[in-house]
Order: sequence, then structure tokens, then C-alpha cells
Amino acid sequence: MSDLVITNATVVTCDGQNTVISDGGVAVENGRIVHVAAAGDLDALASNARQVVDGAGHILMPGLINTHCHAGDSLFRGLVEDLPLEAWLQVVWKAEGTILNRETTHLGSVLGLAELLLCGVTTTMDMFWYPAETVRAARALGVRVSTGGIFFDPPGPTGHDLKMRIAEAERFFDVFANAEDVFPAILPHGAYTVSPENLRAAKDIAERHGALFCTHAAETRAEQADVTDRYGRSVIRHLDHLGLLDKHTVLAHCVHLDDEELEILARTGTSVAHNPMSNLKLASGFARVPEMLNAKINVSLGTDGAISGNDLDMWMALRLAATMHKGFTGRADAVSTAQALAMATAAGARALGAEDRIGSLEPGKFADMILVDVKRPHAVPMFDATTHLVYSTAKSDVRHVFVGGKQVVRDGVLTQHNIADTIAEVEALQPKIAASIA
Amino acid sequence: MSDLVITNATVVTCDGQNTVISDGGVAVENGRIVHVAAAGDLDALASNARQVVDGAGHILMPGLINTHCHAGDSLFRGLVEDLPLEAWLQVVWKAEGTILNRETTHLGSVLGLAELLLCGVTTTMDMFWYPAETVRAARALGVRVSTGGIFFDPPGPTGHDLKMRIAEAERFFDVFANAEDVFPAILPHGAYTVSPENLRAAKDIAERHGALFCTHAAETRAEQADVTDRYGRSVIRHLDHLGLLDKHTVLAHCVHLDDEELEILARTGTSVAHNPMSNLKLASGFARVPEMLNAKINVSLGTDGAISGNDLDMWMALRLAATMHKGFTGRADAVSTAQALAMATAAGARALGAEDRIGSLEPGKFADMILVDVKRPHAVPMFDATTHLVYSTAKSDVRHVFVGGKQVVRDGVLTQHNIADTIAEVEALQPKIAASIA
Repeated sequence: MSDLVITNATVVTCDGQNTVISDGGVAVENGRIVHVAAAGDLDALASNARQVVDGAGHILMPGLINTHCHAGDSLFRGLVEDLPLEAWLQVVWKAEGTILNRETTHLGSVLGLAELLLCGVTTTMDMFWYPAETVRAARALGVRVSTGGIFFDPPGPTGHDLKMRIAEAERFFDVFANAEDVFPAILPHGAYTVSPENLRAAKDIAERHGALFCTHAAETRAEQADVTDRYGRSVIRHLDHLGLLDKHTVLAHCVHLDDEELEILARTGTSVAHNPMSNLKLASGFARVPEMLNAKINVSLGTDGAISGNDLDMWMALRLAATMHKGFTGRADAVSTAQALAMATAAGARALGAEDRIGSLEPGKFADMILVDVKRPHAVPMFDATTHLVYSTAKSDVRHVFVGGKQVVRDGVLTQHNIADTIAEVEALQPKIAASIA
Repeated sequence: MSDLVITNATVVTCDGQNTVISDGGVAVENGRIVHVAAAGDLDALASNARQVVDGAGHILMPGLINTHCHAGDSLFRGLVEDLPLEAWLQVVWKAEGTILNRETTHLGSVLGLAELLLCGVTTTMDMFWYPAETVRAARALGVRVSTGGIFFDPPGPTGHDLKMRIAEAERFFDVFANAEDVFPAILPHGAYTVSPENLRAAKDIAERHGALFCTHAAETRAEQADVTDRYGRSVIRHLDHLGLLDKHTVLAHCVHLDDEELEILARTGTSVAHNPMSNLKLASGFARVPEMLNAKINVSLGTDGAISGNDLDMWMALRLAATMHKGFTGRADAVSTAQALAMATAAGARALGAEDRIGSLEPGKFADMILVDVKRPHAVPMFDATTHLVYSTAKSDVRHVFVGGKQVVRDGVLTQHNIADTIAEVEALQPKIAASIA
């Protein structure tokens, strides 16, 4: 007996062949997809499934994967505006240092991950203080996260020294190594905030656990200049020289790369997390995404935190990834819709080393799936489902979300958590947040 | 007795001083705003108003103004993808030529204007075939439009010759000159599709009626080269040479301008309609918006048609106008939030020559207003209402829309029209549309 059958939908599988089934669905058992098929082939399974969802008028697709976020920073949405990254970071760190503790981090993480879940993101790679609090928030909502120990040479909000950070990172693996809903990682902040020794120490832990390593890299020209000044090598060369780049590494941003740096990423199999909205708003610039794709670099997609991009709208990220490089290069085919959609799904799974479990609708994978309403005034007619998802879909079109076959959003409402409570708590904290940078 | 009082909202007036009232609202009589005040000062009026709306948890602001659209083209949403403008236009014109007649134009216009109204756009400048059908669609929904006779040297879908186009343009003024809900205009397609003589004939009609003149201009490098080849002058110089530029003229796009062309626009008082999404997707490039603003050129905002940008999301346009120029120029303050918000409101009113009637919440103006929900997971906390509208608001946050004090959207639903009927009609037409370019 199936636990769940979703049928009568336009199925965009996001598999390697970009298979689309015009009228079909999936069957789910024990949290995993067991069949992806045309509607007629699901009738028998539907007749005695525990839950049947009619997907008529919807696209059924895998949950989106956000490979760069700081969910807890949602507490600071709109607090620091219209500064370039370096000046902006000084204010951000002041606010974080004053406000963040375990409880507020949990609160901010619930707010951020709830926003993501409502817009159809079922797995997020999150870099933030108190990563166990991010996991606690994710579990309250029923969503997957990739996170883990942070490295940052200054004390930061936690006040931890390197020894404590290492212990915390190791403890994270002890607790979550075997969890299905957590992909443990090591997340040093960046080459300009973490010494070569400490970056290497961080990677050592990641390697010992066969885990992901994620850091900011080459976000701004100033960062490139700073790292080159200090270490005699540009950011990517520096990271490569330290032996940090391989297929378990995800570099967030990679806006300013020369040709040789592109080659290094391609050669080492390093994944990139592209964050278009944050790059625009902080005036960081235009990542060379079309060239990256041509070089077969695995480019995934991120929202960054709401303190930079103001929201965590993966559909906005997807749309920008598909359009801004056209405007910038003058080539209307600079990024195809298939490439853009893959960035938000399969490439994200590959970046997280989880392409065997998430990122597409295929038998054996986790039943992480969303239903997108395609019968709205801004969404008809629909001539091609892939194009439609990239260019016409808004976050409010996401009606139902399933993680591991469990419905965590129903009709645009979280099923596991009362978000009104979270909003009230955030608003109660708001005067303190405003005062933190006064 | 007031017809309508909206109170308890955060009022973003979009007046010349960017006045924000943290807890207040408006009173409306005979379709016009009579008071904009703090909540306490509205109590007496609210106690015997015909309709009272509690704006708690919402921003109250003027309806958005979209100064460049082809609403009827929503029929072709997603039909022609990932081509540069010139190649794309050939396919678009083929589809339009096959599909468009009065009825289908009406249908497409209802679809497009409904999408705009649901996202809070209360006035749209629309350039399309059969402009009287656009007005009929707007009236069915209860929204204002600026439109009028089209000039285009080839026969186009209507098959009209110049004489017929002139007659049609004149007739439009006869019918709509005194309407409060229609701002009549003359809208030749562009300098590359309309001869100098016919552009001049179009402007003559506009001048005779004291009306708006709107055309595409300098959208692509190819257009600049083409016009320079044919007439020995770049697009803006050509239009200026023909005496077409003044404060009653709105030029859509203006992506590729040199310094002297910027000066011409500034000197003549010509308004620009900036269409960021369309410019990105069609690979047209980046309009020099920060320089335009510095030169005091009136820059308003448009969505363009859904056949280029795929939707008519003015919030997306607003967000892009505020962010993409930061990314492009490398200056995080390239466009301020106040400037961006003005583009979508007051500058739009000025472009349409209607700054005495629309574009801000001020006594004497039409009561064109929207209520934006600010208590959603992607929208809290809110530290500054202007910033919030520019960077954090999504179209689905628009809950209530009033045009001339009449509620035309309630809780995200049109009050004057059943949009499900329109969607069904569009879907019935869809196979024909798909076949039109086969």
C-alpha cells in the first residue's frame, strides 16, 4: 500500500533527461518515491493509498534546493541597506554580536526556514552561528538542512575560540551523522576572515567525516584584492593551494573569477552557489555563470540571507539566474531554462553530495516534492512547463509541499508550526534589533 | 459623510516629501482623497463613513503606475523564448497577426490588466492593437488606462493603412477625451517601424489634443544602428530632430543612450519608461538609470508585455530597478529606495501628465490605493516602510485595491470580474495560439 499518491499533475521530474509527464504523478512509500508515472498507471495505487492528492492544475516537481543561506539573519531583514559588502558587514556583525544567542538564533532560523519552506525549498545549506539551533528549527518545520560548525577567526556572537569551534563542529557530527534530514557540513566564513591554518583545520574535520565544506569565495573585488595582498594568491588559487577544493566543496558567490580560476573550479569538481539577488543588491557584480556552465562547473543556486537580499525567494533567484546573465552578456540564450531549473534542483543536490537522495523525482529518492498552481492570472497560458517554472512562477504559486512524503505545507500554510507565534516573537524582539546598531 | 475611511495602516504617501504616517489612513469622498491623517484624526470620520477598512498590519500606499505594457500580449506568455529582440519580434508579429482580432484582444487585455490589478497596479499605459478593446477590458475590471491609436507602417494584425490609423486615433479622442478613467494617447511603435512622416503625423494628433505621445526608443544596439543607418541620426536625435520630444512624450526602454542623448531627454522634459525585466530577458542591456536620475530625467517604470517578461509583476520591476543598477555599476547606492518607489508611483503619474490626479496619497487626488500585508513570514520584521516596499514586498502581499475609492480587489480577489471565466477562455484559445507559430 502506498503512503501517498499525487496524480493528475504536469510532472517536471528534473531528471537528467528533463523528462516531463503531461498528466501524471508519483507514488510514495516510506518517505521515498517508488513510482513516477502517467496518471492512468497510478490509478490502481491511488485506489488504496493512505493519502491521495489531486494535482490537477498544478506542476508537480522536486522541492527546490537552496545552497547558500543564513536563515537566522532573517531577524535583521531590512536593517542595513544600500552599503557595499565590506561596510555592510561591519554593521551586520555589530547587530549579530548584540542580538544572537541560542534562543534568538532559533527564532530567526524558524522565520527564515519557514519562508523557504512556504516557497517550496525542501533542503537548504545554511551557514550560521549555533548550527544545532538551525537543525532544531528545521525539525520543527519538517524540512532538511545542510549545516554544521562555523569557523571565523574573530570571536563573533558565540565568543568561541578555535578549540571550542573545533569541538562544536565535531560534536555536530556525533549528533547528526546518521540523520536523514541533516547533511552535516563544515562552514568556515571565508578566506578573508579565517586564517589558512584554520581553513585547513576545518577541511581536515570535513575530510575525516567525508563531509561537505562550504565557504564564501570571491564575492567582491575588494575580497580578491585583500586575499591577494595577504597571501600572494587570489581567493580561488589560495583555496586551491591549501587543498580545499574538491567535489565536496561548495563556494558561495564566485563573482570575480579570471579564466584560470574557472579552470581550477572545473578541474577540482568544486560546486558554486550562485546568489543573484545578493550580488545585485550589494553591488558585488555578475558571476560568470554562462562561462561556468560551459566549463561544466556545477552551478547551484542560493538566496543568501535576508539581511542582504531582503527575502529568501528561490523563485526570484531562479528567475534572475535565467535572465540577468542574458542582459549582462547581450546573449538571449546565455542561460537556458533547463540550465536555470537544474541550478535550483539537480545541481543543488549534486553540490550537497546528495544527488542519490534529492533534486529530482525518481524512484528511490526522498519524496521531497512541491505542487505549483499554474491556473492563476499571471500564469496562463502555459506552453512549456520548464519555461513556466523559470519565467512565470511566483513563490505564492507553491500550494503544497512534501518532505519525505509528509505534507509540511497545505494550501500555502505550514502544517507543523504556527508561524503567527514566530512573527509575534520577532516583532517583540524588533526594538532591540533596531537599537543594536544605533 | 465619507464614502470610505481606511485607517490603522502604515501610510506611505509617496508625496514629494516621502511622508510616512506610522499609524493612519485616508478619508475618501466622491472618488477622491479628502484627508490623509493619523488614525486618531480619522476616528470621527470613520464613525459615520459608508465603508471603513481596518488597515492594521498593512501598508496603505497609492496604486502602482505601469507606464509601459502590452496587456493583450498576455495571450502569448511563454510562447517565444530566449531570442534577442529582433528575431523575437518576427515570431511575435506572426503570432499576433494570426490570433488577434477585437475579441481575442479584449480577452488578452482582461487577462493582462487583471494580473496588473491583482498586483496593485491601478493605472497602466498600454500600447496595443484595438485600443478601444483595452478600455473595454479596463472598465470591466475597474482600472485606469492610458492608451489610444497605434501607428505601425506594416499592416499588422488590424490590416489598417495610415488613413485608417489616423481615423481610429482621432475617434479614440472623440469617445474618451472626457473620461476620468482613460488618459488618451497616441502610441506609434518605434522609429524603426514608423516612417518620419508618420511619426510626425502621430505627434500632430497628440499635439492637437494636448495628449500623450509614447513610443519604443533605443531598446537595443541593433535598433540604434538601424535608425542611424536609415536617417543619419541615432534614435533619440532622430526623434528630437522630428520635434517629438517634450514633456508629453514617454519613451519606453532607452537602454542604449550616449551622454548627449541623456542631455536631450533632460532638456526636452521627456519621460522614460524603464522596463528592467524585459531588458534583461531579451538581452537588451542595462539602461543608464542612475545617470538619468542624476540628470533629473523623469524615469518611470514598466513591466512591458508578458510575451517578453512573462508576467506583469510591477513589484519585480520595482525590485530590479532598485537592485540591478547597483550590481551593474558596482555602487550599492546607485538607485535609492525612495527613487525606486517614486519610479513606480509619482514618476509614473508625471509621465502620464496626471500628477494632479494620481501617484500619491494627497487630498484632491483620485482614491487609487492599495493595502499591502506586511505580516507575512517573508516580510517581518519591517524597519522602514519604503525599504520594505522596494526590497521585501511580493505581488501576493497586495490584499485590497481601490480605484477612485471603489474596492476592485478584496482579499486578493477581483470584485468586478470572474477571472476563472477568462482563464478558461484563454485555455480554449491556447491550441490555436500554439499553432500560430508552428
